[in-house]
Amino acid sequence: MRVQVAIIGAGPAGLILGQLLHKAGVDTIVLEAQTPEYVLGRIRAGVLEQVAVDLLDEAGVGARMHAEGLPHKGIELLIGGVRHRIDFVGLTGGKQVMIYGQTELTRDLMEARAAAGLKTVYEAKEVSVHDFDSDHPRVRYTKDGVGHEIECDFIAGCDGFHGVCRASVPQNAIANFERVYPFGWLGLLSDTSPVSEELIYAKHERGFALCSMRSHFRSRYYLQVPLTEKVEEWSDDRFWDELRRRLDSQAVAALVTGPSIEKSIAPLRSFVAEPMRFGRMFLAGDAAHIVPPTGAKGLNLAASDVRYLSRALVEFYGGSSTGINHYSARCLRRIWKAERFSWWMTNLLHFFPDTNSFDQKALEAELDYVVHSLAGRTMLAENYVGLPFDD
Amino acid sequence: MRVQVAIIGAGPAGLILGQLLHKAGVDTIVLEAQTPEYVLGRIRAGVLEQVAVDLLDEAGVGARMHAEGLPHKGIELLIGGVRHRIDFVGLTGGKQVMIYGQTELTRDLMEARAAAGLKTVYEAKEVSVHDFDSDHPRVRYTKDGVGHEIECDFIAGCDGFHGVCRASVPQNAIANFERVYPFGWLGLLSDTSPVSEELIYAKHERGFALCSMRSHFRSRYYLQVPLTEKVEEWSDDRFWDELRRRLDSQAVAALVTGPSIEKSIAPLRSFVAEPMRFGRMFLAGDAAHIVPPTGAKGLNLAASDVRYLSRALVEFYGGSSTGINHYSARCLRRIWKAERFSWWMTNLLHFFPDTNSFDQKALEAELDYVVHSLAGRTMLAENYVGLPFDD
Repeated sequence: MRVQVAIIGAGPAGLILGQLLHKAGVDTIVLEAQTPEYVLGRIRAGVLEQVAVDLLDEAGVGARMHAEGLPHKGIELLIGGVRHRIDFVGLTGGKQVMIYGQTELTRDLMEARAAAGLKTVYEAKEVSVHDFDSDHPRVRYTKDGVGHEIECDFIAGCDGFHGVCRASVPQNAIANFERVYPFGWLGLLSDTSPVSEELIYAKHERGFALCSMRSHFRSRYYLQVPLTEKVEEWSDDRFWDELRRRLDSQAVAALVTGPSIEKSIAPLRSFVAEPMRFGRMFLAGDAAHIVPPTGAKGLNLAASDVRYLSRALVEFYGGSSTGINHYSARCLRRIWKAERFSWWMTNLLHFFPDTNSFDQKALEAELDYVVHSLAGRTMLAENYVGLPFDD
Repeated sequence: MRVQVAIIGAGPAGLILGQLLHKAGVDTIVLEAQTPEYVLGRIRAGVLEQVAVDLLDEAGVGARMHAEGLPHKGIELLIGGVRHRIDFVGLTGGKQVMIYGQTELTRDLMEARAAAGLKTVYEAKEVSVHDFDSDHPRVRYTKDGVGHEIECDFIAGCDGFHGVCRASVPQNAIANFERVYPFGWLGLLSDTSPVSEELIYAKHERGFALCSMRSHFRSRYYLQVPLTEKVEEWSDDRFWDELRRRLDSQAVAALVTGPSIEKSIAPLRSFVAEPMRFGRMFLAGDAAHIVPPTGAKGLNLAASDVRYLSRALVEFYGGSSTGINHYSARCLRRIWKAERFSWWMTNLLHFFPDTNSFDQKALEAELDYVVHSLAGRTMLAENYVGLPFDD
């Protein structure tokens, strides 16, 4: 078969791209190695920047998000038992973020894709990408044991950090930048009402904690833990006890506990691959870069990549290669700022094993500066709600 | 002999403290290991924050500084050949800095001290501090081979990084925080007119360069060099050639070269000792902390320490120990913010040997963010001109 754009991966990056291209009359297929149920079961991000919200509206999938999502006007930093509010709206001239679970967003995108009759192949196995350095790239896969080949103009690698697209690039054509952190996040999802109207980022000597949410009825909590911890050793009770120790009395009094519906430990990683275009194959989202979750930038970067990519491809079919030629540099400029911010916020709020170091003391001084300086708070706020696009 | 406060060290910290205490009627002696000529020959800082300017006025030594110093309303960052001005006045609501060489400032302070008939002992050898954990501290020294002992209420350790005061504190009573940098600054002083009205901080792939000045007729230039460089291998011509390579065409055209009157290589170091009070001995200035020169904070921190210390001692003689009890914590809160800023600005503007790292890419993204964001520029400006005092 033949399509204009073969999209590898049916996560938010691939599905938003497919929707944007469909709106522009560009023909796509989406290949996904997993089942729809598996994709929907992945508990991921929940904070959307305004630019991501606008993009979902543009893709025609924003209705339920606006009806059910929770606009948040700020966050709270809980530092040494003292709360400092970061007032996004006041500091950025009216910008805010939207709380809406990635699971819900993915469901909306899947339904929109199905309603438009667009082709998605789930459980596509042995996916491989070919000839993307030529004008005639191809994608092969098997489905139910039968081999298939797709001829296309472009391949969009939206297949995540472990996907086949980046792995298919010759090693000498790609540079990887990485930072690992000496801890992970133990996350717990529960159908309980959130402890606070806004997210609470808590820096505590026992470790960082985050009180987040997906809705008024579903809470998401995280604890910084050593990478050696095992999730089996964390009963719900132990989790709630440890969370209470890292919060202030106001939060402890308001905390509603309940059985976990998901609990897992995720390592924290910063990663960027450069460039993001290889001939007629483009990487987007987690396939090209990973951020630690502290700045809530992962899904938003995926959205910003496919915004650039959809425009570039539509420009191409309109007769100009400018967009695809600039795709990598445009994405990376925004990505590196978000990587910087996520790295900075992670450093600032976590407890590092080596606490007696100069760097750690300097970070504490920076936190003291940031919460007490208008410029410092503005810097945090404008990065959190999302920097404007250059174009 | 007996005095209220024995000040060790006749650099700016010791001399400003002496002057402030004299104004308040507190009796001091200043002991200095070197000759007055040696002290005046040390080429050091040249940028004063507004708070330092105000303090010198308060000490009654600001007249020549106001007549001959150069108020600067901003600096220029030269990044990859493009200039970005940091407009201090516009970004901070009217604050600026004063260019006035430490040599000149020291001369003014020495003359003021002599005019007031206050006792300063130069070439005081074998200085030692005793019993500062009691109410009756003593200082011993020899002068021209004759031993002397001073009984005092307090000892002020203004004797620099290598001084005797910090070294006399039991190791288990003090914590040191340190960061070293894999490069130094090669500095050249010349009696030539500065290349630009304002300081230029240049980030270049060959290394950082700084175009600074002491007056309209005396320029100070710096080049980042590996620590293995030897100053003997840097002829004036070689210095000027290398400086030109790191500047833009506008600066190269305006550069006036001439024979050096001083040339030296200084390593860059961040260092903080905590606490800064040990019974009846206080550390101030370089005796307690060192900053890399990038943020121009060294002399200003010394001024801010002795501002706190003079007030604390005057309070003590007025009947309250509150000031001396809070001295260390008050100083350190401001010091750590300045350490953080100096470390940050050093990281941001220098070329690091390990350029392929994630951290270095994140720093480049941060620089891109800082110069293009009002909040980012404000953050730089308000730290450079000096954060306000808490009290």
